[in-house]
Amino acid sequence: MVRPRRGSPNRDESTDAPGLDRIAGCDRRAPVDFPIVEPTEQTLAELDDMRASIDNIDAALVHLLAERFKCTKRVGRLKADHDMPPADPDREARQIARLRELAVEADLDPAFAEKFLTFITTEVIRHHEAIR
Amino acid sequence: MVRPRRGSPNRDESTDAPGLDRIAGCDRRAPVDFPIVEPTEQTLAELDDMRASIDNIDAALVHLLAERFKCTKRVGRLKADHDMPPADPDREARQIARLRELAVEADLDPAFAEKFLTFITTEVIRHHEAIR
Repeated sequence: MVRPRRGSPNRDESTDAPGLDRIAGCDRRAPVDFPIVEPTEQTLAELDDMRASIDNIDAALVHLLAERFKCTKRVGRLKADHDMPPADPDREARQIARLRELAVEADLDPAFAEKFLTFITTEVIRHHEAIR
Repeated sequence: MVRPRRGSPNRDESTDAPGLDRIAGCDRRAPVDFPIVEPTEQTLAELDDMRASIDNIDAALVHLLAERFKCTKRVGRLKADHDMPPADPDREARQIARLRELAVEADLDPAFAEKFLTFITTEVIRHHEAIR
């Protein structure tokens, strides 16, 4: 079965089914004059399956972030009680360098890992300042 | 042992050691006229310990993010092959609603969870557009 999109003519599954080997592979995009392959039921099932994995990962991320903020809130309380500044540039520089290295090992863009840490740290400093 | 900070007089540990129960507790900050407690060795060790937990969580986050981008790159390839648009507002709305619920359960600010998903999704759409 083929789900038509954008008013394209319905296509025969036997010719247009992409094959699972193409989905996970690193083949380059087809040239411009290559006909667009409509998603088959199999393709849509594959998409649903990938999205279910993304949803599982997101649930794990949310729970890890919750735990991380529990830790940083304790750190914030400790810093406030001892009049230590909320931000610590040396610690942050070490964190960035470490996360960039871990990102390379995990095949994640290190620039994105750094952006991610900055995103989180901005929220943490906001929490720390709210404690004061 | 006490580490002096900001030129404050060194304090006696027996009077200023905060006690671990105060670190993790939810007591409000001391009133303004309450003397600032200098960090003791014990406090600094506690800070190091919390930071080690944060570093462990960050390593897990980086690896999960790497895995998430592997999934979304597969989705991007699939969408490009089938001429499907990179963004999917309905799917994103469902993801936001779900993550906000999960955040509440995990005691994470749901507004932050939504900001986090937007941050990630922006990067994902950038990847999807780069495939085309």
